Amino acid sequence: MALIFRTDAARAAAWGEAFKRQMPALDLRMWDEPGEIADIEFALVWKPPRGVLRTFANLKAIFSIGAGVDHLFSDPELPEGVPVVRMVEPELTRGMTEYIVLHVLRHHRRQREMEANQRAEKWEMISVPTAPSRKVGVMGLGELGGAAALALTALEFDVAGWSRSPKEFPGVECFHGDFGMDAFLARTEILICLLPLTAETEGILNAELFAKLPKGASLINAARGGHQVEEDILAALDRGQLSETTLDVFREEPLPAGHPCWRHPRVTITPHNASLTDPDGAVRQVIENIQRIRRGEPPSNIVDSKAGY
Amino acid sequence: MALIFRTDAARAAAWGEAFKRQMPALDLRMWDEPGEIADIEFALVWKPPRGVLRTFANLKAIFSIGAGVDHLFSDPELPEGVPVVRMVEPELTRGMTEYIVLHVLRHHRRQREMEANQRAEKWEMISVPTAPSRKVGVMGLGELGGAAALALTALEFDVAGWSRSPKEFPGVECFHGDFGMDAFLARTEILICLLPLTAETEGILNAELFAKLPKGASLINAARGGHQVEEDILAALDRGQLSETTLDVFREEPLPAGHPCWRHPRVTITPHNASLTDPDGAVRQVIENIQRIRRGEPPSNIVDSKAGY
Repeated sequence: MALIFRTDAARAAAWGEAFKRQMPALDLRMWDEPGEIADIEFALVWKPPRGVLRTFANLKAIFSIGAGVDHLFSDPELPEGVPVVRMVEPELTRGMTEYIVLHVLRHHRRQREMEANQRAEKWEMISVPTAPSRKVGVMGLGELGGAAALALTALEFDVAGWSRSPKEFPGVECFHGDFGMDAFLARTEILICLLPLTAETEGILNAELFAKLPKGASLINAARGGHQVEEDILAALDRGQLSETTLDVFREEPLPAGHPCWRHPRVTITPHNASLTDPDGAVRQVIENIQRIRRGEPPSNIVDSKAGY
Repeated sequence: MALIFRTDAARAAAWGEAFKRQMPALDLRMWDEPGEIADIEFALVWKPPRGVLRTFANLKAIFSIGAGVDHLFSDPELPEGVPVVRMVEPELTRGMTEYIVLHVLRHHRRQREMEANQRAEKWEMISVPTAPSRKVGVMGLGELGGAAALALTALEFDVAGWSRSPKEFPGVECFHGDFGMDAFLARTEILICLLPLTAETEGILNAELFAKLPKGASLINAARGGHQVEEDILAALDRGQLSETTLDVFREEPLPAGHPCWRHPRVTITPHNASLTDPDGAVRQVIENIQRIRRGEPPSNIVDSKAGY
């Protein structure tokens, strides 16, 4: 029994050490030195090259290193019948919650405008309402979206959520499905995207959606660049349909030099670092799932391969 | 029985309307048209000119429009024996909590550096820890400091507080008095000042205090400009003893043109708008206290005139 793993080079050592600490007996294989392929029963991966997972004939589970699994389902040769497991890890959730709370408060309190005033040496009273009169909407109520919605209700924001299938969270007005989308958007002043990236949600942050928001709403996307139509975001900002946006993700990453988002005064860019998986917490979850599978049980946090999330 | 009130001109109408809605029978006097002085039993004021309150011979209580009462105790002719009542108002507390959470998260997640990277069109991974490994310290555990400390614990920050007299808050490591100050500062990475301004706290944010913080700590002052020695803050930033600061208050407000804080890359300036009293909520509290006094009871939220807060 072996586990093969693939992460970015900068973080590989931390993952290796976490496995050594928690399961020293594990036969851990690096992606570039897989050894005897027949031994490989588990893969822990981020953006594996297409077609490679299929070559591991004895694979029992594929673990995603991040919360999203679009980097796996985009592989047309993803082996069928092998469970795909999403990452549910406390640090990952916590980091995202902090990011969302920070950027919602920045939009809510018009912090960007105050910083522009500072650059102009202008002392101008900007008076902002408090959270109960601010309508925030979270699209996507999975592990990350659900936690963010609850943290925002704790700060007394007026929070709604939208998800494909019906969900319930205390203190959150929950909308769902195509039918619920328009009403959800019509009441949302600060829109947060934490959706999974699937064929259905690809390009969902577009002009048609922005037109359903109240004029001057703002947008935070910390999900995937594939959700957003960047030309539509820029056009909506320039028309005033969107007042500002914070984007952690882009169609092309790193964001290329000269991309108009870099210099747009109402775009805040973060370099896809809203939240990172903590190797220790993640390895703990992977080991638990390996043990479940060895006992003949299904792993936790398995992805619905039809829905793709 | 009459109440005289003094606020800034821009907000006077909102206060007048709140009184009309809630206590239409009240004989409300504007500061500049006091009418028969002998009728005046209550004063609701912000920064009254020195010596004027003393001329109201039948005054039964002085209500502060803001949370701080330094603007009253700085009057050497403040009438003795007349209770001074601080403002405790849910919107005021909520606004301050939002401000503190926003700026703590900005410092914690190095948002200012990410915005500088954006201006340089630089995509650079900045990896930030999550809240449980970040030590935040709140100086001043009154209405505003206590609420901010609790909101920060809800986000799982490692929170300590310091106050002159002993206090207790669940999940907050509480220090007090001169004896507790050094240990409080030694463990604090993000320092928040929400102290009352008194003779003891005037100029407390100075070089000596900064030297007791870990190198690279940051500072948020949303209390009073009188707490801070601005030259010491700038020197500590330039030496790297402080990594950054957010200041809502200044020795001189509006901050004068050419003041070095305006252009310092690691100073964030907000125009003393962290939190504003909501006239409706405030008037509700004032009316309750007028009724208590009429029944012969002491008002709520009375200030200790010896301590000055």
